[in-house]
Amino acid sequence: MGSLSSQEKTVTGWAAKDASGLLTPHIFTLRETGPDDIHLRILYCGVCHTDIHQTKNHLGMSNYPMVPGHEVVGEVMEVGTNVRKFAVGDIVGAGTIVGCCRNCNACKSNIEQYCNKKIWSYNDVYTDGKPTQGGFASAMVVDQKFVVRIPENLAPEQAAPLLCAGVTVYSPLKHFGLMQRGLRGGVLGLGGVGHMGVKIAKAMGHHITVISSSDKKREEAMDHLGADAYLVSSDPADMAGAVDSLDYIIDTVPVFHPLEPYLALLKFDGKLILMGVINEPLNFVNPLLMLGRKMITGSFIGSIDET
Amino acid sequence: MGSLSSQEKTVTGWAAKDASGLLTPHIFTLRETGPDDIHLRILYCGVCHTDIHQTKNHLGMSNYPMVPGHEVVGEVMEVGTNVRKFAVGDIVGAGTIVGCCRNCNACKSNIEQYCNKKIWSYNDVYTDGKPTQGGFASAMVVDQKFVVRIPENLAPEQAAPLLCAGVTVYSPLKHFGLMQRGLRGGVLGLGGVGHMGVKIAKAMGHHITVISSSDKKREEAMDHLGADAYLVSSDPADMAGAVDSLDYIIDTVPVFHPLEPYLALLKFDGKLILMGVINEPLNFVNPLLMLGRKMITGSFIGSIDET
Repeated sequence: MGSLSSQEKTVTGWAAKDASGLLTPHIFTLRETGPDDIHLRILYCGVCHTDIHQTKNHLGMSNYPMVPGHEVVGEVMEVGTNVRKFAVGDIVGAGTIVGCCRNCNACKSNIEQYCNKKIWSYNDVYTDGKPTQGGFASAMVVDQKFVVRIPENLAPEQAAPLLCAGVTVYSPLKHFGLMQRGLRGGVLGLGGVGHMGVKIAKAMGHHITVISSSDKKREEAMDHLGADAYLVSSDPADMAGAVDSLDYIIDTVPVFHPLEPYLALLKFDGKLILMGVINEPLNFVNPLLMLGRKMITGSFIGSIDET
Repeated sequence: MGSLSSQEKTVTGWAAKDASGLLTPHIFTLRETGPDDIHLRILYCGVCHTDIHQTKNHLGMSNYPMVPGHEVVGEVMEVGTNVRKFAVGDIVGAGTIVGCCRNCNACKSNIEQYCNKKIWSYNDVYTDGKPTQGGFASAMVVDQKFVVRIPENLAPEQAAPLLCAGVTVYSPLKHFGLMQRGLRGGVLGLGGVGHMGVKIAKAMGHHITVISSSDKKREEAMDHLGADAYLVSSDPADMAGAVDSLDYIIDTVPVFHPLEPYLALLKFDGKLILMGVINEPLNFVNPLLMLGRKMITGSFIGSIDET
């Protein structure tokens, strides 16, 4: 199934060259399409807060030039000789991870996002020793294991954010036993993951409260996303009225914030699930946890299986 | 089954009169033995770190005079007219709680330790409006719901610490699905709860590592309690060698301590279970949690059912 184009391809992307946050055009090459590879022309790419963290070196591990973007939807242009699941012309997606060891416990359990040798779709080094570059570009070459088909009834531009934000929310709800109808959930922060959180939890039949620092996003939460309630975290009366009311909170805030006000909103055995990478220590007082057998945990994107 | 002694009884206890930590003799009265009450002569009483917290007012809610002690073993002297399970002469135990509402979700689920209206065995107010007083005294009157029989093959003096420390460890291991043989557990801090942690987890067939700040308790942990390994938390090489090795850690330390070193010792999906009440905020960096889907949780004593 190889073709004449099965060689290094020159592409143009938008790259960060330093920590300023500015992206400028960048020309680089993609590897030739190997036996297990898919070469895709990029149609859409989501923007995630992690892209901002990475381009601005908030996590202290950025390498430049860096083409961000890890919620990629594209059209298959070429497939490797071993590829049977995809054909030229298919609309497919790629996400946060483009490689893993395939031998560790995480890989064998199909939760390759927790593999210690996973390869990020950008700001990482591929098995050929070359830097990986993301979806803010005209094309990508991705191993078929990390490619998913986009169903025909889903608009490609709407599918993009599902590839990271969507599965990031779905994965912990599934893992922590929070899929049953009728649960009462909270979504703290209404960015990309928060939007997806409301949509996905509503689709599971949950009663969803959006919690935000001000009233600004009330209309968006209630009217556009279909949330059931809206809490302003800076309003003590609002918060006091909701104590002990939620089975879980999806905490998407990617900067320091106190945890106590949200732990207080949880019912007995409630779960605070952290999803925003934060590079400052978070703190809490432990009787709040102990006396309610509450839990602080975190979850990190999702697997290809879950996607 | 009432008797002539079914009236207010004058007893002597050892009470804190202020936050100095000093206990001095204190004479007080016990209520008359009601229909559901057990009047017991106290034989043994354990000493728990909470007793120190309370007598010294570390939690800011102490009332004096206070007779501490909540791991009580005694001999039944008299039983109320409704009592069928216990008879005069039985050896019985009482623990941390002597009352609860019996109507809330926690009470109905037999986890009355999480009832919002539970009554502590001391430093609390009973339903008759009088202060409760604990086991550092010659006698107690306790509702039969909160009394357990001490099996004949268990020495009464050894049974006492099971009534708080023992069930405090057993309860979360059971709740969080950590009962199966072969698990690798850590016990951080080798005080009362830590001792019980090693004993109970070993009885479940776990491989147990005691983690302590110095080498001082190595012999006690390994030779006397039968731990499998001993880690000195102040030794970076020791700690680095144990990264990603434990399924859970029972954290019994009742004062501020950093959580990161212990979160790092946990395997993927590992659980850090806080058991020491700490009145300063604890902190952690959240990628350590998210990237390993690890969990910080807490648990609070145990139920009468579990005892």
